[in-house]
Amino acid sequence: MGKQEQAAISPTRAENYSEWYQQVVKAADLAETSPVRGCMVIKPWGYAIWENIRQALDGMFKAAGVKNAYFPLFIPLEFLEREAEHVEGFAKECAVVTHHRLEAKDGRLVPAGELTEPLVVRPTSETIIGESFSRWVKSYRDLPVLINQWANVVRWEMRTRIFLRTSEFLWQEGHTVHADAAEAMELARHMLNLYEKLATDYLAIPVIKGNKSDSERFPGAVETFCIEAMMQDRKALQAGTSHFLGQNFARASKILFQSEQGKEELAWTTSWGVSTRLIGGLIMCHADDDGMIMPPAIAPAHVVLLPIFKKDSDRETVMAYTDTLAARLREKQYMGRPVGVEIDTRDIGGARGWEWIKKGIPLRVEIGPKDIEKQSVFVGRRDMGHREKMSVPTDRFVEDIADTLAAVQHTLYQRALEFRAAHTVTIDDKKAFYDFFTPQNTDMPEIHGGFALSPWCRDPACEAAIKDDLSVTIRCLPHDEALRGADAGSCVCCGKTAKGRAVFAKAY
Amino acid sequence: MGKQEQAAISPTRAENYSEWYQQVVKAADLAETSPVRGCMVIKPWGYAIWENIRQALDGMFKAAGVKNAYFPLFIPLEFLEREAEHVEGFAKECAVVTHHRLEAKDGRLVPAGELTEPLVVRPTSETIIGESFSRWVKSYRDLPVLINQWANVVRWEMRTRIFLRTSEFLWQEGHTVHADAAEAMELARHMLNLYEKLATDYLAIPVIKGNKSDSERFPGAVETFCIEAMMQDRKALQAGTSHFLGQNFARASKILFQSEQGKEELAWTTSWGVSTRLIGGLIMCHADDDGMIMPPAIAPAHVVLLPIFKKDSDRETVMAYTDTLAARLREKQYMGRPVGVEIDTRDIGGARGWEWIKKGIPLRVEIGPKDIEKQSVFVGRRDMGHREKMSVPTDRFVEDIADTLAAVQHTLYQRALEFRAAHTVTIDDKKAFYDFFTPQNTDMPEIHGGFALSPWCRDPACEAAIKDDLSVTIRCLPHDEALRGADAGSCVCCGKTAKGRAVFAKAY
Ligand SMILES: [Zn+2]
Ligand SMILES: [Zn+2]
Repeated sequence: MGKQEQAAISPTRAENYSEWYQQVVKAADLAETSPVRGCMVIKPWGYAIWENIRQALDGMFKAAGVKNAYFPLFIPLEFLEREAEHVEGFAKECAVVTHHRLEAKDGRLVPAGELTEPLVVRPTSETIIGESFSRWVKSYRDLPVLINQWANVVRWEMRTRIFLRTSEFLWQEGHTVHADAAEAMELARHMLNLYEKLATDYLAIPVIKGNKSDSERFPGAVETFCIEAMMQDRKALQAGTSHFLGQNFARASKILFQSEQGKEELAWTTSWGVSTRLIGGLIMCHADDDGMIMPPAIAPAHVVLLPIFKKDSDRETVMAYTDTLAARLREKQYMGRPVGVEIDTRDIGGARGWEWIKKGIPLRVEIGPKDIEKQSVFVGRRDMGHREKMSVPTDRFVEDIADTLAAVQHTLYQRALEFRAAHTVTIDDKKAFYDFFTPQNTDMPEIHGGFALSPWCRDPACEAAIKDDLSVTIRCLPHDEALRGADAGSCVCCGKTAKGRAVFAKAY
Repeated sequence: MGKQEQAAISPTRAENYSEWYQQVVKAADLAETSPVRGCMVIKPWGYAIWENIRQALDGMFKAAGVKNAYFPLFIPLEFLEREAEHVEGFAKECAVVTHHRLEAKDGRLVPAGELTEPLVVRPTSETIIGESFSRWVKSYRDLPVLINQWANVVRWEMRTRIFLRTSEFLWQEGHTVHADAAEAMELARHMLNLYEKLATDYLAIPVIKGNKSDSERFPGAVETFCIEAMMQDRKALQAGTSHFLGQNFARASKILFQSEQGKEELAWTTSWGVSTRLIGGLIMCHADDDGMIMPPAIAPAHVVLLPIFKKDSDRETVMAYTDTLAARLREKQYMGRPVGVEIDTRDIGGARGWEWIKKGIPLRVEIGPKDIEKQSVFVGRRDMGHREKMSVPTDRFVEDIADTLAAVQHTLYQRALEFRAAHTVTIDDKKAFYDFFTPQNTDMPEIHGGFALSPWCRDPACEAAIKDDLSVTIRCLPHDEALRGADAGSCVCCGKTAKGRAVFAKAY
């Protein structure tokens, strides 16, 4: 796009990142706010992303021996009370069902039939799954139990942001039970690897794997593993977590089993999840000032065919050519799915192509009488400028479709990787650290900072001081030794001996 | 099964059908009641059926141009008030959210943060989807809109029965908007045909397609189409409905569009749905006194391999043979899915085979040292007696797997069809009609009745009289002319001129 040209999305990322995000969601027709405060309507073009994420992950889960099940939407209050210490973190803001009937009264409907015990709409199914596990598991022969649930959950939010923080969202939560610690730990790590695979191979989002610090760890977990991604405003987004819960959860839920030696023992458990939040991350990682850019591996559709005819006499020829091309493309596969083809025949001029640019479809294909004469099509790639369109022989376009999509996928991943590299710095010095995370314009902070790899002494006090001063948190203690470095150097906060580097960043 | 032998499920169907049903659900490990009144836990073996139903239907929907979307779990009270006349039928018993916070008080958690307007947990998403449609549809160019949602819904039930009637259940609801009546009507009929295809080709349940009578019609619908199936207690189960809503729903939800002629017009809409209730129907149609019988087309798995070794020295050979066989089978496809193979190595004697019989897996394959010597396997089919096992050369078993599964599928469908035929009678006489539907033992009614094809005058008074006297309802006015017959004869109730035959039955 030329410098003078106006972007399709206003404001641009540089002008107002947060508002740009909302406008991309709208322009791409991904979702909308609903009449229910804090809840969203996920529109077909956005929901298809979730369907593709679900399909990809579900296949990986099943290959790992995980089975899907479904647990009740409602949680009895006593379940939360029983584990009140544990639910401290999230159970306060939730939807509470107190009545089971509506009655007409003075022309209005009013709640009636008060429940003796209120029910909570699940903020997670952890407690109710734990209750089931306590009944399902009796002997070592019943183990491991590997269960996953795809469902909606509700956490009442006062300040919401579509996909990123909504009162209701969709997610999967996996829960597993094991006879020994090592097996549980290995499972938790394996699930993190699957999330990494989802992020890199499907979402084209590079991630850093690591452990959470004590203060950022999931309540009740012995170890929380996470993948962290950099958004285009250089903030971090936690894109998935996997928890090794030790025997804590089994103790709270009374999950006991008789061991091979006939002894009654507490089981070892894990839990792990990702949510529709990932779609927010996908947008913030890839979209540009012209709208959404869909990685082909999870794109709702791969190609839009845009037939062009000025004369009615051309109509039949062009449409026949278009339909044949669509059929040929749909017979091809990319990443285990048939190539998804949309045909847009609307006669609305240039707005048609721009709509698809904003929706982020990987390939736009114009088909006019002259193209047909040459047996070629005119192809625009969403990862390139909107003017860089190429005439490609139709047969070759069809033949190469999977390779072309793979090339788009690769470009997006590389671009995100380079962006992250450009905004990840190794900082040992406290002043440099503070400078890195302090905007120059305090009234309207510009996009600044990024990931800082800095030595940390492991003292929560240093972590807290940095959080207070800069709203910067420890995203993870990276698994990659090249990032973590040696257990040497001085803490970027207190100067005492550090135990490797942590990833510091502002975060969603 | 020999006459003397005890069945695996107690009581049997003949002894106590209703209790037999509960025991099959339990023995097959399909689902269980939960600590939340009226809600069930769908266990992996039961949930997989729903996943397979979902996959089959979703593919058919998408081929019909339908897109999935997701709407909020909560419905504002005013939405129900606005359409109060319309929701009369189901909105009274529902879960009402009145608070959005829990607070600790005297060691307990109590609801806090009262909402200014209570929210209802969706008993259906109809009203909130209607609200979206009213904003999405502006011009004839936006039509048709073809939307489907897979979700959980809640209708507070006092007397519940697992899968058949639960407070929370899973379903899909489709909603479409059209510019003209004929297109909407055609869509509603097409969806009914897809449900018929699901029932016959996947669930192996024969169904009768038809229209509901005025009194059984969905509130607000101009025409309700349904498929009705016969269970083994000869009662009917409505297995799917599709509604042509005319302009009624568009009027209530203000779905207006500008026509090609520039006129503002009310749109024409449809809705259609099936739910986890289908799993209850599947059980009641196919299961026998030994437990569940899974139609291969929606079975959670197709084959269980049961390695047998008495000596430890045989173990390695048998397990290697088993694993190889599993791998070969998994490369095969049946009905668009890879053949699903379970391996059960537990050393629990005869209980092992019986567990799989009760779970209803289509094929059980025993593999012992002698089978391996002969390069054969010992196969039991769930649609045959549990003793009728056959030695089959392993290569042939693998080669024929899809055909074998198709044979099981065919047997189940034919058996259900014959059962229905045996218990469907054409009755013109009122006394015979009453006899047909009256048990001989009134204290503990035996399994009796079935489907009666009887002439009906179309007067709701006759329908009501029969319902009052016998608890028998008009299931549908069948589309099939061979069933409906001519518009002649005398109403089985009042003797006046009938307009074709209706299907009368007791129903779930
Ligand atoms: Zn320090
Ligand atoms: Zn009559």
